Amino acid sequence: MERVDIAIIGTGPAGLEAAITARIRNKSVLLIGSKDFSNKLVKAESIKNYLGFPDISGRDLADRFACHLEEMDIEITEDKITSVYSMGDYFALQNSKNEFYEASTIILATGVMQGKLYPGEEEFLGRGVSYCATCDAPLYHGKTAIVVGSSEKEEAEADFLAEVADKVFYIPTYAGDIQLKDSVEVLREKPKEIYESEGKRVLKTNAGDHPVDGIFILRESVSPAQLVPGLATDKNHVKVDRTMSTNIPGCFACGDIVGQPYQYIKAAGEGNIAALSAVSYLAQKKREAEKKAKEEESHGK
Amino acid sequence: MERVDIAIIGTGPAGLEAAITARIRNKSVLLIGSKDFSNKLVKAESIKNYLGFPDISGRDLADRFACHLEEMDIEITEDKITSVYSMGDYFALQNSKNEFYEASTIILATGVMQGKLYPGEEEFLGRGVSYCATCDAPLYHGKTAIVVGSSEKEEAEADFLAEVADKVFYIPTYAGDIQLKDSVEVLREKPKEIYESEGKRVLKTNAGDHPVDGIFILRESVSPAQLVPGLATDKNHVKVDRTMSTNIPGCFACGDIVGQPYQYIKAAGEGNIAALSAVSYLAQKKREAEKKAKEEESHGK
Repeated sequence: MERVDIAIIGTGPAGLEAAITARIRNKSVLLIGSKDFSNKLVKAESIKNYLGFPDISGRDLADRFACHLEEMDIEITEDKITSVYSMGDYFALQNSKNEFYEASTIILATGVMQGKLYPGEEEFLGRGVSYCATCDAPLYHGKTAIVVGSSEKEEAEADFLAEVADKVFYIPTYAGDIQLKDSVEVLREKPKEIYESEGKRVLKTNAGDHPVDGIFILRESVSPAQLVPGLATDKNHVKVDRTMSTNIPGCFACGDIVGQPYQYIKAAGEGNIAALSAVSYLAQKKREAEKKAKEEESHGK
Repeated sequence: MERVDIAIIGTGPAGLEAAITARIRNKSVLLIGSKDFSNKLVKAESIKNYLGFPDISGRDLADRFACHLEEMDIEITEDKITSVYSMGDYFALQNSKNEFYEASTIILATGVMQGKLYPGEEEFLGRGVSYCATCDAPLYHGKTAIVVGSSEKEEAEADFLAEVADKVFYIPTYAGDIQLKDSVEVLREKPKEIYESEGKRVLKTNAGDHPVDGIFILRESVSPAQLVPGLATDKNHVKVDRTMSTNIPGCFACGDIVGQPYQYIKAAGEGNIAALSAVSYLAQKKREAEKKAKEEESHGK
């Protein structure tokens, strides 16, 4: 796959506006996320302060956004990025199937992670705690696992895990019907803490303690520090300046991920800034590369 | 006139979004500016990256904004604020007729001043250089003046000045027809510099030197430091943090006035943030006042 100029992760208003602005500036764009946009947007009953649309439902606003993307020939690549690695002069974006995309710059617009990390979650991450069932399922042949899912989208991951593992429990943190294979046991409990005991990972809930081999915590958004190693954060939020630049050169962020207020028009406005900052960054890199090439040429003489 | 919670100066996308968000949060709002919104918006031929409106003219987008204001019962007070004074726990906003509005907080959304100050402009401001013909006309009885106007809106000011002054010259810095009283002499020249000579102010242009008693420089936006004494600025821009707070407590700014990129959706997003920051500020002030009242009550016992 070709390396793109700008990879945008997230399809809420921030990511969409960033994609549109980047495309207008003639950059190649990879827009990764859900074709249904963000859950938060689509499920909003009534939005009253997105300037230009007095009182519109999230569903209708999403339709307008879809229209805008179509008009500009921007496609959404439906995928979930689990890690982003800064490789010096480009970024490698890893998906849940261990495939990689490459981009010269990235814009993080994945929204804010709802809720806090569970105590012990960070400590055991990669050692019995995972954010990706599709990636780590092979490790659970004949073993037991708990999947904590934040939306119905995660049910497919639990089903897949159940094909491999000996026993899978599923704890939904959302309301509504659950559609899972019969072999998956649903627990209507509230996760409280993760700890280690006798070689097992134990998920403590309001109803008791569940010792298993692996605990999968599947949220719509992962914590930004988990997504991009080395990224400076402040609790759940990515630290940015007014140009939407993070501490990693070439990595920008916008929308709910960078902090409150969690508002659609604010997110879109920041997406615009992030895209133009990425464009400036690319131009600067190009100038530097040309200067270097010239210097090398004159040295060669 | 009642003191309002939030006075918003400017009716571009930043000011409009701020007004809508403030109204949703049940604050009393005074929105001051042109009912035609900003020139920059209305004259835009085609806007392609205001998310939700693929390829819309500035005129049509302005109509959508007008619709949104109407839906929310927000009126624009058509006026021009020449100075804003911080009075400790409120702000006084002075218009060109020397009348005052009062507000607990203010949001500056006047756009960016086009072009630079002329050399000498700042030095002679208030001493023969003025930004407001309506305010200072009485001082020019039987005297001579030059009006430098940045748009057709300023022609009325030159006409008014001509009723009082002995001789008025008008230098338009825009293209197009000029409609002025016969007594006003139009000079198609480019202002270069202002200096003092033999008790007169002299406007030097590309065509020559014009010694007069007063020079009026009328732009769509005044420089922010001139508008609000004590405001921290960086060249033409107001310094703000990510909450759109300026260095003056209770004074916020958004849109082009706080810096690039000069984009509609960026301005609207910032208007949203500024309004919510003003709302937080008002809530904090209220808590402090209540605490103080309680303490005084308990001291009285």
